[in-house]
Amino acid sequence: MNVRPARSGVRKSPATIWDVARAAGVSVGTVSKALNGRGQLREETRTLVRSSAERLGFRPNDLAQSLLRKRSFTVGLISTDAYGRFSIPVLEGIESALEPARISVFLCSAADDPAREQQHIDSLMAKRVDGIIVTGRRTDKRPALALGKAAVPVLYAFAQVADRNALCLLPDDFGGAVLAGEHLIGLGRQRIAHVTGPEDFEAVRRRRDGFRRALRTHRHTWRPERILVGQWSEAWGREAAARLLALPERVDAIFCGSDQIARGVVDGLRDQGVRVPDDIAVVGFDNWEIIAAATRPSLTTIDMNLRELGREAGLRLLAMIDGESGSGVVRLPCRLVVRQSCGARRVA
Amino acid sequence: MNVRPARSGVRKSPATIWDVARAAGVSVGTVSKALNGRGQLREETRTLVRSSAERLGFRPNDLAQSLLRKRSFTVGLISTDAYGRFSIPVLEGIESALEPARISVFLCSAADDPAREQQHIDSLMAKRVDGIIVTGRRTDKRPALALGKAAVPVLYAFAQVADRNALCLLPDDFGGAVLAGEHLIGLGRQRIAHVTGPEDFEAVRRRRDGFRRALRTHRHTWRPERILVGQWSEAWGREAAARLLALPERVDAIFCGSDQIARGVVDGLRDQGVRVPDDIAVVGFDNWEIIAAATRPSLTTIDMNLRELGREAGLRLLAMIDGESGSGVVRLPCRLVVRQSCGARRVA
Repeated sequence: MNVRPARSGVRKSPATIWDVARAAGVSVGTVSKALNGRGQLREETRTLVRSSAERLGFRPNDLAQSLLRKRSFTVGLISTDAYGRFSIPVLEGIESALEPARISVFLCSAADDPAREQQHIDSLMAKRVDGIIVTGRRTDKRPALALGKAAVPVLYAFAQVADRNALCLLPDDFGGAVLAGEHLIGLGRQRIAHVTGPEDFEAVRRRRDGFRRALRTHRHTWRPERILVGQWSEAWGREAAARLLALPERVDAIFCGSDQIARGVVDGLRDQGVRVPDDIAVVGFDNWEIIAAATRPSLTTIDMNLRELGREAGLRLLAMIDGESGSGVVRLPCRLVVRQSCGARRVA
Repeated sequence: MNVRPARSGVRKSPATIWDVARAAGVSVGTVSKALNGRGQLREETRTLVRSSAERLGFRPNDLAQSLLRKRSFTVGLISTDAYGRFSIPVLEGIESALEPARISVFLCSAADDPAREQQHIDSLMAKRVDGIIVTGRRTDKRPALALGKAAVPVLYAFAQVADRNALCLLPDDFGGAVLAGEHLIGLGRQRIAHVTGPEDFEAVRRRRDGFRRALRTHRHTWRPERILVGQWSEAWGREAAARLLALPERVDAIFCGSDQIARGVVDGLRDQGVRVPDDIAVVGFDNWEIIAAATRPSLTTIDMNLRELGREAGLRLLAMIDGESGSGVVRLPCRLVVRQSCGARRVA
């Protein structure tokens, strides 16, 4: 049955059900019954078949079973996040949900290349995946997958499409920013600035709106000169810190749109002899451990719970594979992680 | 043929070859011939079948073809690197090699959990993968995969096992450290220190040995007090910088075992008013863009070429699937990336 020549002589063809039948001296049908635990068989026959199968290293062939059941027990994950900072925790969460269902994940990195993405889709459809999850580097609206006539469940996790029939799971950036603002206000800060990334990111606009909501709820005034929009970089954080220090009225807290920006802000403030958190408290966004923990002082920040988001995505896809429908945009809660940059006592 | 009830009414069963035959008014055999481009058919029949297939969204079923050819056109990638910093570029490289061969990758994250890894292996074997690549967070020797009787090609990329029959692709840490040492010596530095991570990492020992080789080649003295072994962290880099500044004879260059350490070293030196690179040149290791580019001044560092390593792994696995044998430890070259922390003029 082996169509690959074993040129090196090292590999053997995997054992087939016929090999097991021959070794046990029974029919193929008996092997099938014995290994499936179905049908009437004498216990010694069942034991004989199982030990033969084990000795030969025979594994029931999922491929054949998939064809019979019309299920491949695989899903595709299409990711545009080459760097992996956001997609990896999402992927881990997805896997933690799918593993108990014995479903494996095809990872396809598309790197914002529509042609490559389409190739991946074609390949996944040809492999008859039971479902597809799409994830990305940023949560702005992207084109929906072009599946043609194929009817396979698709879900977007940390990614979003305009199609109202699609199910999109996203972090609640607005709510996360409310948490950050309320935390600083709760600590008695009065003049809070916001330093963030490029406005063409939906996440930037939603975080700014959440911050504004927290100010308004607590009757703090929204001061446009304290809202600085720039890049996702430490260098921008340092520059923004210098600009804020040049304002006539000194701010006493800064909510940053990312941990990278927050790190730059903290370094920039220290360069100017400003103490964090005593003079100015700082809160970041992302809970990117490698940055947040290394900052001096370590960053209080907002965690998007991406692993939980991935897990939820996996569970919802399982339900869709099982026939449930799903659509709409679902925003999952963020949480505050307290370290040292805000002046609050550390909460376990 | 659909065994899943379409409860939501949203999904349809995928079109089968019988649906296409019915729509085109031909036999199933004719559909097969038309879509495979084999056998004699009138051009208009071929066109009719193809347009029917397209209209119905019919895709030839890879699962069935796999069974016939005894190839699944899939490989498994088992990764223990949950964080993904090292495994993601390796994975990208692997994918770039496998994509042209139309092979898809099952990603299994094992997170240093042997039981979970074994579950993944069982699942991959049941899915009849054509090969397996194992990658990890660190390159120290790990147990070989327990495949039982199964004979499937396995390759270790950025991972290593004691088994001499296994093929392991690793970065040449020794050679990378030689590059770093020679670069600093070439710039005229005379008293070069080395600040690195925990000695139980093979990479730490190999990088230290490579550094020592560079010193010896150029008749520089190896001074034990200038070799500081600690942790993979910025905090350790800052502490080590302070210790080096306390030595009676001031060093004029520091080769660091990682970019995180190098960043801590640079920050620690700046805190003490030491100018980098004027007073002390610094070289890192990893070329971790997010750290190296954000450091002030930006880090000259060693790149392990992990994407190329992954690509090489993918190509070698393809050759093994095709019958070639492979074994032994292969070390692939690193390269020097010049930025601003060493005082050399930037090389394009």
